[in-house]
Amino acid sequence: MLRNTNMRWRLPLVCFAWEIAMIVLFGVFVRYNHETDPSWEDYKKEENITLDIENDFYYRYPSFTDVHVMIFVGFGFLMTFLQRYGFSGVGFNFVMAAFSIQWALLMQGWFHTFEGGKIRIGVESLINADFCTGSVAVAFGALLGTISPVQLLVMALFQVTLFSVNEWILLDILHVVDAGGSMTIHTFGAYFGLTVSWILNRPKLAQKNNMEKPAYYSDLFSMIGTLFLWMYWPSFNSAISNHGDAQQRAVINTYLSLASSVLTTFAVASIIDKKGKLEMVYVQNATLAGGVAVGTAAEMMLSTYGSLIVGFIVGIISTLGFKYLTPLLAKIRLHDTCGIHNLHGMPGIVGGIVGAVTAACATEGVYGAEGLKKFFKFEGEYAHRTPSVQGGYQAAGICVSLAFAFVGGTAVGLVLKLPIWGAPSDENCFEDAVYWEVLEEESDVEIGNHYATPDSTKEL
Amino acid sequence: MLRNTNMRWRLPLVCFAWEIAMIVLFGVFVRYNHETDPSWEDYKKEENITLDIENDFYYRYPSFTDVHVMIFVGFGFLMTFLQRYGFSGVGFNFVMAAFSIQWALLMQGWFHTFEGGKIRIGVESLINADFCTGSVAVAFGALLGTISPVQLLVMALFQVTLFSVNEWILLDILHVVDAGGSMTIHTFGAYFGLTVSWILNRPKLAQKNNMEKPAYYSDLFSMIGTLFLWMYWPSFNSAISNHGDAQQRAVINTYLSLASSVLTTFAVASIIDKKGKLEMVYVQNATLAGGVAVGTAAEMMLSTYGSLIVGFIVGIISTLGFKYLTPLLAKIRLHDTCGIHNLHGMPGIVGGIVGAVTAACATEGVYGAEGLKKFFKFEGEYAHRTPSVQGGYQAAGICVSLAFAFVGGTAVGLVLKLPIWGAPSDENCFEDAVYWEVLEEESDVEIGNHYATPDSTKEL
Amino acid sequence: MLRNTNMRWRLPLVCFAWEIAMIVLFGVFVRYNHETDPSWEDYKKEENITLDIENDFYYRYPSFTDVHVMIFVGFGFLMTFLQRYGFSGVGFNFVMAAFSIQWALLMQGWFHTFEGGKIRIGVESLINADFCTGSVAVAFGALLGTISPVQLLVMALFQVTLFSVNEWILLDILHVVDAGGSMTIHTFGAYFGLTVSWILNRPKLAQKNNMEKPAYYSDLFSMIGTLFLWMYWPSFNSAISNHGDAQQRAVINTYLSLASSVLTTFAVASIIDKKGKLEMVYVQNATLAGGVAVGTAAEMMLSTYGSLIVGFIVGIISTLGFKYLTPLLAKIRLHDTCGIHNLHGMPGIVGGIVGAVTAACATEGVYGAEGLKKFFKFEGEYAHRTPSVQGGYQAAGICVSLAFAFVGGTAVGLVLKLPIWGAPSDENCFEDAVYWEVLEEESDVEIGNHYATPDSTKEL
Repeated sequence: MLRNTNMRWRLPLVCFAWEIAMIVLFGVFVRYNHETDPSWEDYKKEENITLDIENDFYYRYPSFTDVHVMIFVGFGFLMTFLQRYGFSGVGFNFVMAAFSIQWALLMQGWFHTFEGGKIRIGVESLINADFCTGSVAVAFGALLGTISPVQLLVMALFQVTLFSVNEWILLDILHVVDAGGSMTIHTFGAYFGLTVSWILNRPKLAQKNNMEKPAYYSDLFSMIGTLFLWMYWPSFNSAISNHGDAQQRAVINTYLSLASSVLTTFAVASIIDKKGKLEMVYVQNATLAGGVAVGTAAEMMLSTYGSLIVGFIVGIISTLGFKYLTPLLAKIRLHDTCGIHNLHGMPGIVGGIVGAVTAACATEGVYGAEGLKKFFKFEGEYAHRTPSVQGGYQAAGICVSLAFAFVGGTAVGLVLKLPIWGAPSDENCFEDAVYWEVLEEESDVEIGNHYATPDSTKEL
Repeated sequence: MLRNTNMRWRLPLVCFAWEIAMIVLFGVFVRYNHETDPSWEDYKKEENITLDIENDFYYRYPSFTDVHVMIFVGFGFLMTFLQRYGFSGVGFNFVMAAFSIQWALLMQGWFHTFEGGKIRIGVESLINADFCTGSVAVAFGALLGTISPVQLLVMALFQVTLFSVNEWILLDILHVVDAGGSMTIHTFGAYFGLTVSWILNRPKLAQKNNMEKPAYYSDLFSMIGTLFLWMYWPSFNSAISNHGDAQQRAVINTYLSLASSVLTTFAVASIIDKKGKLEMVYVQNATLAGGVAVGTAAEMMLSTYGSLIVGFIVGIISTLGFKYLTPLLAKIRLHDTCGIHNLHGMPGIVGGIVGAVTAACATEGVYGAEGLKKFFKFEGEYAHRTPSVQGGYQAAGICVSLAFAFVGGTAVGLVLKLPIWGAPSDENCFEDAVYWEVLEEESDVEIGNHYATPDSTKEL
Repeated sequence: MLRNTNMRWRLPLVCFAWEIAMIVLFGVFVRYNHETDPSWEDYKKEENITLDIENDFYYRYPSFTDVHVMIFVGFGFLMTFLQRYGFSGVGFNFVMAAFSIQWALLMQGWFHTFEGGKIRIGVESLINADFCTGSVAVAFGALLGTISPVQLLVMALFQVTLFSVNEWILLDILHVVDAGGSMTIHTFGAYFGLTVSWILNRPKLAQKNNMEKPAYYSDLFSMIGTLFLWMYWPSFNSAISNHGDAQQRAVINTYLSLASSVLTTFAVASIIDKKGKLEMVYVQNATLAGGVAVGTAAEMMLSTYGSLIVGFIVGIISTLGFKYLTPLLAKIRLHDTCGIHNLHGMPGIVGGIVGAVTAACATEGVYGAEGLKKFFKFEGEYAHRTPSVQGGYQAAGICVSLAFAFVGGTAVGLVLKLPIWGAPSDENCFEDAVYWEVLEEESDVEIGNHYATPDSTKEL
């Protein structure tokens, strides 16, 4: 069955509706916080702050720009690896993220910085909004090439909502630590995306479509994404850590874990090929698993060698996943275009477990008596929580994230299955020309084959 | 008429002359400022500064590197979208910018940091020099593919000069606020470039040249430029704002305006195509209009939803401009290769107006009594200026910038029309092989057609 | 003679062995330093530090991320210029660097931050590790396309070791200043790589292989590397400078020197071509010579025009080197794929000399009486050293670095000549398909010719 993929009214309608809603809601709810407002001068006096450089802006802005690059160039270019889906990969990620950051500012604001009827935003809010958007980008990876931009924007609306509720439960109810988002971003994002993909399943996709493969230059474009993700991941995992030692520790742990997973990725990639040849897909993805897997524990006292060990293990797991698990999942009709299960799913769960164990093993000897309380925020109603109990709650956080992913993903998948969002037919998956003007000389050569059939031409 | 485009003596002569002049002038005039000199230790004591981190360097350097990336990778790669003009787009932007930043340090230094016969430079000077260079890169966008590198370097010499005078009039005489340069950078740059293009007009260009179109991969390269411009624009608009809340506010307003214009760009791009298909040119350009249009008001109390509204409107204006206005301008012989009128011209004027209105509406209730005076620098001879008067001066700033652009552009255009700068013939426009060694296998395929004519071959 | 290039067991073995060694050694030796550890709170009190923002992290982290980008995207993409070696250029640089930063943390740690049996690491350690890795990336440039990834990892092991010893002799024994590494990184790295290349010489390479040339898009990918190196070089040269004025001065001097070398590169590139046409190879490389050549003196009182003059000269030297010297060296069997002798070798030596002269000319009038002692660390056993003596030691540093490069390069070259590392045959040099799965449709077209011979096919 071919579907009507014409976006002419659908896409504008969704974009305008979403953006006008944002404007109205921002008008009602969103205001600058003290550090962003001229009242900063008064605030400085009240809080006994002496220097402008103590404004949180200067602690976080360099990390924020790095995270911003990860979301737009990192994820965007990572998704240009398909031979004829580069415009869509980078372009749809762009519009999805531009919407999601706005909606996340609202959703996260209501849960975390809502005072006197207003959401107060500052640089940390921007980072959190980018984080939430990252989880949508992860989920998009499973669906790349098989959903329309309208479906993506609808999914973003729901996923940002679910993300924020899940994040609130983890941080405010379970009171867990998850600065780099192994659970909230990666585990939730990956299994949400996979569940949606499973609901939307296309049993005959592989037979009807031979476009799902890279080309030489598209693989190089994808490496731009990989490297910016890899280089800036230390900023990602440290961006909202406590000022001072915690932020620096998160950087070092992430840096080491990532370095380690590069080595094991290359090692395993070479072992699993009969001729020992490498494939770009592993290098583009599994090298990043080390960053995912220290997302929860990066700011903890994971130790330098602990970080190396985590990266070592997930580099192996992730590469093996691409080789053996993704084809297996495809057989049970679980399509995963970018292999997010290998990059974000399994390493995300590992990250949650590493975080739980590291928290459970925390001692006053290592953190200092005051340091331990400060770090895990054992204060107020949580004043009597011990590290081992904290470890239990951390583990519970993984389960809650998975539950949200499966239930939420099923519901959202069913919504996206409605035949009104312009989903492409199997023949038109992984094909820019469905949604973009592509110059004819180019498209003729490579995609001519399946255009020749009268049916599909009619639809385009 | 074919012209002699051989650069062998022209380009070296201009490069050496320009650079030797820089060395002599820097030797006579340019010195480190207090924060860059070992006298910093004494300066700290005098100014009662206690910590090294209070050196302006640490407030501005992260923003500076982002701005630097925007000028060289942002503008550079944005201009690689033509199928066979990528080397020139990124390469000529490189040499132009490397010269312009030096000349801008001198020109802006004479106007702003000239003390005791010496220009004192520091990190803020580098940012301002990059800003000035940005306006030349904007103007280059209108002329991309139609001028030689020598013409570009000659234009840069004059444009930097005019920019600095215009900037001085706006900031020091009219006393306006324009931290992100909606007026000084975008409005001036765009209309200056368009005026030059109009003077240099090539009535038969469209008939003789079919190279002015993108290719699949060149469109992807261009997206690298787009995204780095988009991601770092908050740094651009906040880079020279006051320390503390103003800098953070400029970031947030720019971030929001940009996000909003992405949504409306996609919406309009889909509406205006019969089949609802998107074109990369809109995504590459109109998505950035939100950054241009809050250039003046970003650090003001524009409010979060105000920023969204500005981005919403200019996303629409800019996309419609690309679709309907650029072809119209081409009919009156106003060639605009990159569509700078849509990205920098109209949004720049909108930005100036938004700034004027926001300034006119400023109240002590919003900024605080001291805050208002501090923000608009209502001190000394300007002590009695009111917000509404300030709004008037802001509006005057737009007019002055436009006047400078038209008069200056006409004069510079006439200089560039002299037949000594190696301008390419219409047939050779948008063609790297005129100025670069391009391997034959490659060039044969795509550009063979117009090389076959004996006349043009002779010239190359 | 064709060699067995199958990586299946060699590469995994080396990767696993190297990484497991790292984990064990990190477990035994590497700990967080005070500013990265929860003991930061106590340390603050002891050292009378009042604010978290005084943590060294905030002085150095923005520079660190820039340096990180230079190593992975800068060097990585710079090496994608060959038509069919992009995967290897960016991919092998990736795995080499991921290993080298770990090993450098250990080696440099033993020499510089070893206390009570433990190496204490913080953000400055990460920067130094990236620096050391930069020198391996430089050396790799000479060998690009002619060595296997296993050879590269073996070389990295030895080169990092030699680098650290040489660095220790320069900084701790000779007590020289070399913050941007003209001597330790560039001179050492370049001549080490060239010596290895000379030992590994392949007399018939040029006859048997016609793959060593760029393609249109690969030249554009390479420009991504060039520009990120160029833009972030000011961060590189200032990353470990003293807080305050020295760091800012290093930025400004590097910025100016780089700008100047762009102009002279374009000038000379145009002069030396009969038709005045530019070649991308000059623009990709010689424009960076200005950064190399102020590596030692950037933080000194080199003066703004002094920086411009240095950039002016090395832009010329470097471009002429690519045109005339590289072909000459090739005749004496010294193959230099990326022309590192022109970009890092000669400019590195110039940088060392500029540093020696600038140090020798230092006066109390310029630096201040205290400033001079503080800057050159004339304290303890060096309390009575004068600037002119310092100049002599700086010059000695160049000689020591060269000696280490020649002797070390010879030894390592002989190790790499062992026939067990899977070095490619001359026919298979500069060819991704030897080590990577490349889709057949692609590879057929361009590399089919030399695959047709039965001998070589057998090997792949």
